[in-house]
Amino acid sequence: MTEGFHYARRVHFYETDLAGVVHFSCYFRYMEEAEHALWRAAGMSIDSAGAEVGWPRIATAFEYQSPLRFEDEFEIVVRVKAATKKTLEYGFTFARGATVIGTGTLTVACASRSNGRMRGIAVPADVVERLRAAANQKP
Amino acid sequence: MTEGFHYARRVHFYETDLAGVVHFSCYFRYMEEAEHALWRAAGMSIDSAGAEVGWPRIATAFEYQSPLRFEDEFEIVVRVKAATKKTLEYGFTFARGATVIGTGTLTVACASRSNGRMRGIAVPADVVERLRAAANQKP
Amino acid sequence: MTEGFHYARRVHFYETDLAGVVHFSCYFRYMEEAEHALWRAAGMSIDSAGAEVGWPRIATAFEYQSPLRFEDEFEIVVRVKAATKKTLEYGFTFARGATVIGTGTLTVACASRSNGRMRGIAVPADVVERLRAAANQKP
Amino acid sequence: MTEGFHYARRVHFYETDLAGVVHFSCYFRYMEEAEHALWRAAGMSIDSAGAEVGWPRIATAFEYQSPLRFEDEFEIVVRVKAATKKTLEYGFTFARGATVIGTGTLTVACASRSNGRMRGIAVPADVVERLRAAANQKP
Repeated sequence: MTEGFHYARRVHFYETDLAGVVHFSCYFRYMEEAEHALWRAAGMSIDSAGAEVGWPRIATAFEYQSPLRFEDEFEIVVRVKAATKKTLEYGFTFARGATVIGTGTLTVACASRSNGRMRGIAVPADVVERLRAAANQKP
Repeated sequence: MTEGFHYARRVHFYETDLAGVVHFSCYFRYMEEAEHALWRAAGMSIDSAGAEVGWPRIATAFEYQSPLRFEDEFEIVVRVKAATKKTLEYGFTFARGATVIGTGTLTVACASRSNGRMRGIAVPADVVERLRAAANQKP
Repeated sequence: MTEGFHYARRVHFYETDLAGVVHFSCYFRYMEEAEHALWRAAGMSIDSAGAEVGWPRIATAFEYQSPLRFEDEFEIVVRVKAATKKTLEYGFTFARGATVIGTGTLTVACASRSNGRMRGIAVPADVVERLRAAANQKP
Repeated sequence: MTEGFHYARRVHFYETDLAGVVHFSCYFRYMEEAEHALWRAAGMSIDSAGAEVGWPRIATAFEYQSPLRFEDEFEIVVRVKAATKKTLEYGFTFARGATVIGTGTLTVACASRSNGRMRGIAVPADVVERLRAAANQKP
């Protein structure tokens, strides 16, 4: 079984621009959707009501290979690419059938909310384990 | 001097869709931008840090007459169209030069936030007065 | 069997705003998603490649009753509410379980694209029939 | 005079998310706004009506240092960071007063549209010169 959690999506009309293709900013929204679907697959939610822990974005990037168009059905494969004490990095591959659409990364920090401020804290060990398990990654 | 506060805007690329025009949902974002600019013109912010009062949306509508395209410069005229004890209704007219783009309305309630719940409260009298003054409306 | 085509959706993170609820402009995107899902259920696409016919928006409105929050699962019921020679009006009801979220309408015109201009034309009779059939509406 | 074209922006309400800060995907829209403002400052539009040349996105990235909040006023400095025969790379720095918000890059290709397909072509020499001049960059 290959690594990665699979998230399926269809392109909405409002995600296209005057060039007739999905606007490049939407790919970051798609990556986040896949991230959150991975959390749900791992039996968690990235933002439960009253949660004291948040996951602010530190860095992200995307490389575009082939465009997406209205009503295209495509698939995102997401996995935990790296983890440090206080950060997680996800890797993403987008494809429509056999056509690679592009690849991206998203690095997030683990932070504790108190008094409206975010403070970096250690990523809970079980979060990484559960996400990796949901993405078919070896322990 | 005619009634209404004037808010100027240029169309961004990502607001267009594959039909080459601004997506119809963006007009609601434009109306809200004009609403908040009116609040600033009245010396207020609709969401100050730690504010206990919010303005949830109750109803909104838009009628489209002529499309907007990439980099079009247009103007929104906003005014307080009606006020009840607990609600405010704004009226909007969009134009690009002499061309009417469309007209819209937005009705908001005044609500108090406590324990994460919103409860309808009376609209503070000075808010209506200040907004109407900023929109050149007679007292 | 009650009237209406059912479209299921889960709220994405980027659809929420600082008030912790789905931004009011997103409901118009949701209505359009349901419209296009109805077209697909009727065996059509609202924008096939090279299509000469488009469906510009004429008017739309929404009344908000209860907010949607991150990861809420909700359902939209869409049906053809009215049809004239050159326009179609859809009606929408949003619900999360037994909770009504709100109701909306969307009126579109049928238009022919030629030389970059849109010209109003008669709605093809079979389009109305097929949409109504897909929405379980009597002929 | 330091390098870079300056683009000023205020955060809109609908750009925030439930964490109370601007959603990370919006930074890519902001970068594109600054890119297009640079083009206008150079006396050009990136998408004139009937244009045969387009600028599809090849790669983009952003590193987040400090969040943006509702109604924050910030400034983007954009410049041409690199140019190859067929691509352009822009560099961006975001700041709110003395606070660095983050930095980003955007690489675009020059492409010719024909029959609905995009084909990579050489970047017109005067485009690079004009953009660099508008960004106060040495020839």
